[in-house]
Amino acid sequence: MNEEILLARAYLSRVAEPPAAALVGLVAEVGPVEAAARVREGRVDEPVARETSVRRQVHRPGTDLDAAAAAGARLVVPEHPEWPAEAFAAFDAAPEQLAPPLALWVRGPGRLDELCGTAVAVVGARAATSYGAHVAAELGSGLADRGCTVVSGAAIGIDGAAHRGALAVEGATVAVLACGIDRIYPASHELLLERIAASGLVVSEYPPGGVPARHRFLVRNRLIAGLAVGTVVVEAGLRSGAQRTAADAMSLGRQVMAVPGPVTSAMSVGCHRLVRDGALLVTRSDEVLEAVAPIGSHLAETPEPRADRPTDGLDPAAARVHDALPARGARDTRWLALESGLPIGAVRIALVALERRGLVEHCEGRWRRRVVVGV
Amino acid sequence: MNEEILLARAYLSRVAEPPAAALVGLVAEVGPVEAAARVREGRVDEPVARETSVRRQVHRPGTDLDAAAAAGARLVVPEHPEWPAEAFAAFDAAPEQLAPPLALWVRGPGRLDELCGTAVAVVGARAATSYGAHVAAELGSGLADRGCTVVSGAAIGIDGAAHRGALAVEGATVAVLACGIDRIYPASHELLLERIAASGLVVSEYPPGGVPARHRFLVRNRLIAGLAVGTVVVEAGLRSGAQRTAADAMSLGRQVMAVPGPVTSAMSVGCHRLVRDGALLVTRSDEVLEAVAPIGSHLAETPEPRADRPTDGLDPAAARVHDALPARGARDTRWLALESGLPIGAVRIALVALERRGLVEHCEGRWRRRVVVGV
Repeated sequence: MNEEILLARAYLSRVAEPPAAALVGLVAEVGPVEAAARVREGRVDEPVARETSVRRQVHRPGTDLDAAAAAGARLVVPEHPEWPAEAFAAFDAAPEQLAPPLALWVRGPGRLDELCGTAVAVVGARAATSYGAHVAAELGSGLADRGCTVVSGAAIGIDGAAHRGALAVEGATVAVLACGIDRIYPASHELLLERIAASGLVVSEYPPGGVPARHRFLVRNRLIAGLAVGTVVVEAGLRSGAQRTAADAMSLGRQVMAVPGPVTSAMSVGCHRLVRDGALLVTRSDEVLEAVAPIGSHLAETPEPRADRPTDGLDPAAARVHDALPARGARDTRWLALESGLPIGAVRIALVALERRGLVEHCEGRWRRRVVVGV
Repeated sequence: MNEEILLARAYLSRVAEPPAAALVGLVAEVGPVEAAARVREGRVDEPVARETSVRRQVHRPGTDLDAAAAAGARLVVPEHPEWPAEAFAAFDAAPEQLAPPLALWVRGPGRLDELCGTAVAVVGARAATSYGAHVAAELGSGLADRGCTVVSGAAIGIDGAAHRGALAVEGATVAVLACGIDRIYPASHELLLERIAASGLVVSEYPPGGVPARHRFLVRNRLIAGLAVGTVVVEAGLRSGAQRTAADAMSLGRQVMAVPGPVTSAMSVGCHRLVRDGALLVTRSDEVLEAVAPIGSHLAETPEPRADRPTDGLDPAAARVHDALPARGARDTRWLALESGLPIGAVRIALVALERRGLVEHCEGRWRRRVVVGV
């Protein structure tokens, strides 16, 4: 990797608070090295100045790269082959608040571009119910087991359950932070973040030491939505960061999905709202895969939990004759015709079919039901 | 009411097992009196003969009308002003299995056509969960309270809960039976059916004494779907009569709605399938009303259960400055500018706004958060 570019991107990553659409535009126009030089010297137009004037003199890219390295992290930049260019392509046509990151600090053995190719975001409320946590873990495991990368935000609640579900089947998972790559947030997820960093990737666009300020969670959510081919919201109140992730995913043209829950649960209100607004209702990982995978490659296998009955598959006339027979007692053909409303001939044909299946038996000129285990 | 027509329709009601599309066609062509005469004498073409040959000699319309009267019921026929002609208009363009009834036996003080004008069907599984029964009762009450008639099938489970919900607010409710109007089915709903018949209507297309054979439940479901302007499925397994009601409602061009539930519940599988197949997800009666009522007359009032925060409504810059301030300790303007990434001037403006709202206080040249109840 070109050291000059890396230093320029590291500097720009600290200078501008994301999303920084004007600065991203300048970098695209003149390249990161020239852009960094102009920003540092204040030779930029008004929009870029607004995004960079306050911190432009904080020039410590080497220190930041060292701090990242000390935390086991590295900086991935758009000029690097690992950059998930395909995932970020959609950001070009998106509104300003969905500007792509200038660089990404990453920690872990995973390759960012490869992980993103099959990534599904599983997100939701911090105040998850046990139901929501259960479903998130099931989705995390189910998706990871089928080769998907599970992307989430490492928050307590749904996010954590989704990551853990993926880890439980030794699957790939990516956590996108709203703070510096060297910080542990939330503190109670220290072990979880270590496990993610040991097998997948922890990702952040904030420079080392960056604090998890509230607005950063919303800004970070666009990266979760953007790195994945689809986003599943498992539980969400009406006021919820997950709703924002879903909105970002929609803006980026990604598949938005939501898991339903009890209508009596405040934690499912946001999911139901999403479905009413056009999100796809999903109930299990098969359905998620069907929605995000190329057509036909992962058709959801419907389990159709059929409680097979001995009368399954009977033609309608036979079913009507069988219904007409009382549970106990025998009836003659004429009675069955009257009761079922079928012609005598049709009743006789139906009785033959029913007898062959062992559902009725003949007895002194009359017919009665045979007791079949499971009827 | 013309006695001759009533007797003819009563006879036809017993002769043919619904749905009897060919016979309905003949009646439309030559009128009920002539059609009854031809059927009785066997002067009909093959399709009508198939529907009527077995029972055509069971001629006892007077007895049936007397039996109905003895049970407190009457026969409503298409020639009667009470006939819900508007509701059944859609049956004309529907497939054969959705043939309209030849007549309806009804019990109760309600006027069938008036009740149908605002009717919503609330249906679902017999093996309902307590969650489903709760939601059905809430919907029944909510819809009845807003002037809707709650139509259902009087079955145990969701149906019963929906009827009871309507009765609880002294609302209108209609039960459509799959047996004769003089029979009580299920037996455990004797009191419920009496209560429905005392204020609304119990309805059946089967002549007095008709038994509740299994196929009749599915055939009956088309009437539930047809009498209502929309159908809500509250809980349903994958194999469920409620699914059939929903399919019939869709064929008839009615609004189909489904209530979500836990994805872990077998009783919600059918509802989630319906939503995935295009049914509208609904969570409360407001949303049902919005879907079935003329546009604008009943817009669902979104409760938006906002947990108001003192920081709600802050402009983005003020929110960023507020976020940047630590929970404890004071910071100067320059520090806040660096942390928030905003120009000093913007930070000052934000601080004024925050101070005015009582969210920050000035203290020896620095700023700190004020503790606000509820933050």
